[in-house]
Amino acid sequence: MAPVRSISWENNRLRILDQTLLPSKIVYLEIDRVSDLAEAIVHLRVRGAPAIGVAAAFGVVLAALRSSAENMPEFKQHLRHAANLLASTRPTAVNLFWALDRMDGVVDAYPGASIRELAALLEKEAAAILEEDRNVCGRIGEHGAPLLRDGFSVLTHCNAGALATAGIGTALAVIYKAVQSGKTIKVFADETRPLLQGARLTAWELGQAGIDVTVLCDSAAAVILQQKKADCVLVGADRIAPNGDTANKIGTYGLAILAGRHDVPFYVAAPSSTIDFSIQSGREIPIEQRDFREISSGFGVQTVPDGAGIYNPAFDVTPHNLISAFITENGIQRPPFKKKNNP
Amino acid sequence: MAPVRSISWENNRLRILDQTLLPSKIVYLEIDRVSDLAEAIVHLRVRGAPAIGVAAAFGVVLAALRSSAENMPEFKQHLRHAANLLASTRPTAVNLFWALDRMDGVVDAYPGASIRELAALLEKEAAAILEEDRNVCGRIGEHGAPLLRDGFSVLTHCNAGALATAGIGTALAVIYKAVQSGKTIKVFADETRPLLQGARLTAWELGQAGIDVTVLCDSAAAVILQQKKADCVLVGADRIAPNGDTANKIGTYGLAILAGRHDVPFYVAAPSSTIDFSIQSGREIPIEQRDFREISSGFGVQTVPDGAGIYNPAFDVTPHNLISAFITENGIQRPPFKKKNNP
Repeated sequence: MAPVRSISWENNRLRILDQTLLPSKIVYLEIDRVSDLAEAIVHLRVRGAPAIGVAAAFGVVLAALRSSAENMPEFKQHLRHAANLLASTRPTAVNLFWALDRMDGVVDAYPGASIRELAALLEKEAAAILEEDRNVCGRIGEHGAPLLRDGFSVLTHCNAGALATAGIGTALAVIYKAVQSGKTIKVFADETRPLLQGARLTAWELGQAGIDVTVLCDSAAAVILQQKKADCVLVGADRIAPNGDTANKIGTYGLAILAGRHDVPFYVAAPSSTIDFSIQSGREIPIEQRDFREISSGFGVQTVPDGAGIYNPAFDVTPHNLISAFITENGIQRPPFKKKNNP
Repeated sequence: MAPVRSISWENNRLRILDQTLLPSKIVYLEIDRVSDLAEAIVHLRVRGAPAIGVAAAFGVVLAALRSSAENMPEFKQHLRHAANLLASTRPTAVNLFWALDRMDGVVDAYPGASIRELAALLEKEAAAILEEDRNVCGRIGEHGAPLLRDGFSVLTHCNAGALATAGIGTALAVIYKAVQSGKTIKVFADETRPLLQGARLTAWELGQAGIDVTVLCDSAAAVILQQKKADCVLVGADRIAPNGDTANKIGTYGLAILAGRHDVPFYVAAPSSTIDFSIQSGREIPIEQRDFREISSGFGVQTVPDGAGIYNPAFDVTPHNLISAFITENGIQRPPFKKKNNP
């Protein structure tokens, strides 16, 4: 059992598994331009809050390495331009802004460095962010695995796995670690409309790792819970407010209500970098509205008549009181979150 | 505003609008063989509990008209064979069995009739079932319309409209009648995976009638309710137990929980023929499991990897206590239902 590696830095290029083509095609993209990376993030070729953070960090590195700037002000302008482009790709996942802030911090920390030195330092920082993410995924898995007993069935939504991180995932890391420790775990994966990350990605990566997975329509999750077929619900997060309100893939909020109604624990697994200390509650989290065509012709076939309105929010916000516990690299936590324990 | 007419009997043929091709193509099928009708029901070319009942009744007529039987026992065998084939198409909607029972009753009621006379009597009964359904739809609409105030937004799931009946629908009849009485009504339509009846059919028929409709993924309904964008939820039913437990399209149960959680009324609109007095509660309703390919490659594109399990129940059962009221042709009703008022 070896979870797939979806993002890596090789020969000065960012290598990502193109997630729009799964499960039918396995295609790795070698990205060496910031604009290509921005396109890849917007079109979800790389996706998942932690993976977007890692990718954005390397986007700044690509800008640094490819810069033709001959003086420091020009170089910094190139970096800023790249960071702005990357920041504009997707509004909800806070890891994106967190990673760009860290890259920015490197520039500020070395005012005397040359262009060449700064480029090397930025590459080192991005590599550190990637390594930390891998490490954090492992620790999330270790902390969460004891929550899953041998024989448990876990219901999950969207993809919070190896495909969403540089490591073994967040929600799925918990499953991978439980399985590695010898437990038998069965997974129910919501297909997750409109882009079917559950069907296309979660089912694919769990299958690659030899884990038993069953795909269902999002609307069938209530029946799985009604029939006591799932022992817990386990999802990732795109942004967590300090009070515990959590933005995640559209459908998570309803699923949390359904889990509570059926007395099934509802866990959120995420790195602490997902917590946004600049806000107070979920009300302040911006929700990305995506192209209506994801719903009206997502499979290449028109499924909504012309003239109908379409509502396509990519995320929703689950209030903290519906979440049984948070699994971070620092352990099982409950809000409110304090900045000192979550750097 | 004129709701579409999806099923009619013309020149000894059953004319149905092929619902698998909507919204991109409007194709009417002229069916004159029972086997073609059975195929059309299995593949949801004609669908919706009331429409299936009407179609099945005419299926028996087709068998009678096309029979080459030279004596009554042979003729009755032909009819029985047709009824058995039709009864085997779909297990959940009770209207199918109710309509076949009525056709059976005609055969029993005229023991002295000739083959020709019996065929004519069967055609008359099927025409009566169709006419009654049209009439019942109108009455459901009339009874339900006062529940919708001017300016209301209604959230619906699947298609319980003109495309699901011989008339103007059940849930959508309420909307059509409210609009006809001068009210402005806005509709949110769950797309309704896996077969997207909400996106393809409900949005199409409401659009044809000039009613404002917005399509959303099933998983976004919770947000619509959270944001108080819907004033009520209104759905149809495939089978109702006398205690009020209601089988309807997969996703209805979860939606009922979400409506209750947000203090939004949840109404079921259905003809009284949908009530099954042969059972006690929803536990006895058989739930159709449909082909996994509806989920794995529903639109000609593979969206689930080989090897993954797939769970595809077509219906779920909503317990009666989650349903605010039932709208039938006899008025606004609450369970338990008694047979005497619901023949």
